[in-house]
Amino acid sequence: MAIAWSEKASSMEVLASPPSLSPPVILTQDELKKIAAYKAVEFVESGMVLGLGTGSTAKHAVDRIGDLLRLGKLKNIVGIPTSKKTQEQAVSLGIPLSDLDSHPSIDLAIDGADEVDPYLNLVKGRGGSLLREKMVEGACKKFVCIVDESKLVNHLGGSGLAMPVEVVPFCWKFTARKLQNMFESSGCVAKLRNDGKGEAFVSDNGNYIVDLYLKKSIGDLVVASDGILRIAGVVEHGMFLDMATTVIVAGELGITINNK
Amino acid sequence: MAIAWSEKASSMEVLASPPSLSPPVILTQDELKKIAAYKAVEFVESGMVLGLGTGSTAKHAVDRIGDLLRLGKLKNIVGIPTSKKTQEQAVSLGIPLSDLDSHPSIDLAIDGADEVDPYLNLVKGRGGSLLREKMVEGACKKFVCIVDESKLVNHLGGSGLAMPVEVVPFCWKFTARKLQNMFESSGCVAKLRNDGKGEAFVSDNGNYIVDLYLKKSIGDLVVASDGILRIAGVVEHGMFLDMATTVIVAGELGITINNK
Repeated sequence: MAIAWSEKASSMEVLASPPSLSPPVILTQDELKKIAAYKAVEFVESGMVLGLGTGSTAKHAVDRIGDLLRLGKLKNIVGIPTSKKTQEQAVSLGIPLSDLDSHPSIDLAIDGADEVDPYLNLVKGRGGSLLREKMVEGACKKFVCIVDESKLVNHLGGSGLAMPVEVVPFCWKFTARKLQNMFESSGCVAKLRNDGKGEAFVSDNGNYIVDLYLKKSIGDLVVASDGILRIAGVVEHGMFLDMATTVIVAGELGITINNK
Repeated sequence: MAIAWSEKASSMEVLASPPSLSPPVILTQDELKKIAAYKAVEFVESGMVLGLGTGSTAKHAVDRIGDLLRLGKLKNIVGIPTSKKTQEQAVSLGIPLSDLDSHPSIDLAIDGADEVDPYLNLVKGRGGSLLREKMVEGACKKFVCIVDESKLVNHLGGSGLAMPVEVVPFCWKFTARKLQNMFESSGCVAKLRNDGKGEAFVSDNGNYIVDLYLKKSIGDLVVASDGILRIAGVVEHGMFLDMATTVIVAGELGITINNK
């Protein structure tokens, strides 16, 4: 049974609005993302191997790391990008990069999420980089997730937005049908993601994304995860279970830090 | 605990050597494969949707189906190939083809295997087509597996030959290391498959194959399967658990038909 975010109080630290933001103003969603991102970068220390996330919130964190390197406040950082897009951003900022093959153990990753439940389970991948993000964030000692408060849900899928599954292009309709049937009792509708130009969206790994839209909770998430992964044709899904060690939430009333 | 093939007697039918082969002769491995393949094609009926396997044994079955179509002994067959190679073979034989998207339910698949254990669990994919084979054979009402007796093992991995895992090329070394560590207690060594020309072998889906070499049994196969699939970066593995409904084994002493 899912608990509501409002009922959860353990391991939670509520910070006042940052001094620089008083007197109170109406903040845009992007400003909230930036506040969460900057807070997360406070966890970064010189000498760290860092997982660099993908998406509009993570982008602020990568920008901030670039700034601190340029200012000499951070040194000897090695970044492991989670997408080609983040790789390009990091290169443009002069952040030294490597990969998981060379650095199989990562000190800290900072990344956004599309949904966060009260147990700090996440949905990620609406940006299409779920596989690389899962590989990098699964190799981290600490994974700090940064979101604005619109991403909080009482159960994964609860936003009514997409729960992404990366599939091989070969007979993707067959795989999509299997996924939809698996979650039939949750009112699941499976749709191929398009690139906005009428073609299928193609991931960095050359695969397609099938988005699942759910009307109800899918129940036990570990069971659901294994069920999805057992479908031949599925490469990975966007549920990140028991991976985030800290979730930083920026809202109108300040920043909340939730620890595992 | 694994049982030995020699101890298993239930649901097994031993046929005498086919009349056409008497008086007894020493048969090559390829002749044994052909005998098993021809026996399997006896299960095929006109009007069926057929999964067409890949590899040296399955090739004989596809040839035979082509012959029977040409002779008019089979009609209205629709073939679903499990690889680009089999697709080319079937086209050259004039076998009408379709795919899983158009025919999500298949009457019968015929395919070879690299290993068969006494419970009719299989290792497949040394030919590199494990993902498409698993998609097609997972959609079958009946799956007849055809092997010569050299493929029988007491536990999967027991031949000492490769247990293939299809992985995304991105940071494949990291994924290979995770696989090797997972089966460390079974003496696992993980190696990237090459194409014989010094480059990585690339599957029909654009992925790499990491071959696992095992010194000892990996224990509970369902646990091992889920463990492998949970590794981000793994697309699919070559264990086909509880999928074959019949295994036809051709040996020097005749044909054995093992039913689930």
